[in-house]
Amino acid sequence: MKTNNPRKIAILGGTGKEGKGLAFRWALAGHTIIIGSRSPEKAAIAADEIIKLTGEEISISGTDNISAAKDADVIVLTVPFSFHKEMLESIKNYVQGKVFIDVTVPIVPPKVTRVQMPPEGSAAQQALSILGENVKIAAAFQNISYENLLSGNNVDCDVLVTGTDKETRTEVIRLVKDTGLFGLDAGPIENSVCIEGMTSILIGINKQFNVQASGIRITGIPRE
Amino acid sequence: MKTNNPRKIAILGGTGKEGKGLAFRWALAGHTIIIGSRSPEKAAIAADEIIKLTGEEISISGTDNISAAKDADVIVLTVPFSFHKEMLESIKNYVQGKVFIDVTVPIVPPKVTRVQMPPEGSAAQQALSILGENVKIAAAFQNISYENLLSGNNVDCDVLVTGTDKETRTEVIRLVKDTGLFGLDAGPIENSVCIEGMTSILIGINKQFNVQASGIRITGIPRE
Repeated sequence: MKTNNPRKIAILGGTGKEGKGLAFRWALAGHTIIIGSRSPEKAAIAADEIIKLTGEEISISGTDNISAAKDADVIVLTVPFSFHKEMLESIKNYVQGKVFIDVTVPIVPPKVTRVQMPPEGSAAQQALSILGENVKIAAAFQNISYENLLSGNNVDCDVLVTGTDKETRTEVIRLVKDTGLFGLDAGPIENSVCIEGMTSILIGINKQFNVQASGIRITGIPRE
Repeated sequence: MKTNNPRKIAILGGTGKEGKGLAFRWALAGHTIIIGSRSPEKAAIAADEIIKLTGEEISISGTDNISAAKDADVIVLTVPFSFHKEMLESIKNYVQGKVFIDVTVPIVPPKVTRVQMPPEGSAAQQALSILGENVKIAAAFQNISYENLLSGNNVDCDVLVTGTDKETRTEVIRLVKDTGLFGLDAGPIENSVCIEGMTSILIGINKQFNVQASGIRITGIPRE
């Protein structure tokens, strides 16, 4: 279903499978997507891949991370945790007043099934401490299997959205809906620790059950 | 279904709805239950209530918390967070070498929908720091709606079990099964923060959807 509120969304680190999965879904929903990468060439290649995958007329392009952040009104960060801090510092000046969605999970090898948070409490709180109070920060999509997102398959996983304020969470929940997933308001940004950490728990469950894409679903609520 | 490995289970703070729900289910499964309370009289009354509720011959009694802990080989703690530390210190000497299951969630009023953890990282890690390395500590059942547990209704919520070692988690997953619920190994005790905190998120979701018992379910795995 096409959005009636098209946004210009930058996906930084968008050449990875997480970023491409989100780009694919949002582009199909009618948003304008700017893939950001350290390498503008790789970003352009990823954009072309997604155009081919959709087989529809979509609005997507690729450039460097800074240019992508400058040009967009929603900025989504999908980089490995080891690049998280550095990326936040480099884009800080270009996201002020905008919506910023952090998809980062602090997975710290080799113990990837152990919850290990940065000193700020979580990746999202680290983003808040670096970007400051004037950015509308949300954290979302941490538990999703991106292969399924990109393939267009059904993704049996809810998206728990935390954020600095209710308005931002509501806006991000709408963007979640545009990906075909079900988003819920999981409260203030401090709650992100539970959702980021759940990814480590799900990686452990994947190993135990020898599956690729365990997820979580909220039970006991009415659904549309 | 009756257990083929009956245990003597003390439920401390067991006169609350959480404790009574677990006592009800485990007693029906054939375990011997000792309800512990500050007031041995209240513990005995709770035990009688459960006998009436089950309508079966079950093994259950009530006494003070210390006597319950001394007498049992599995100790379950279901007290409000404000009593957590004090209770742990008072039972420390009587749980050494035994299985200890912490059900505590650090809900800190008035912001009950905000994840707020103790300095140790979580209630379970606080238990570990007080009880020490010789106790087989697990954390479980934090996200369950206890009204449904006590009524015998279906509880649509998985139980994520963290613990100090794999053997303890496996034993507790068997005890989860005896309550009629589905338990999963959620990894080391450090991961408990996510599951304890999920309770605050679910309280928020209950409010938003005006429901009593939202829960979580792990998706994408085979089930028996």
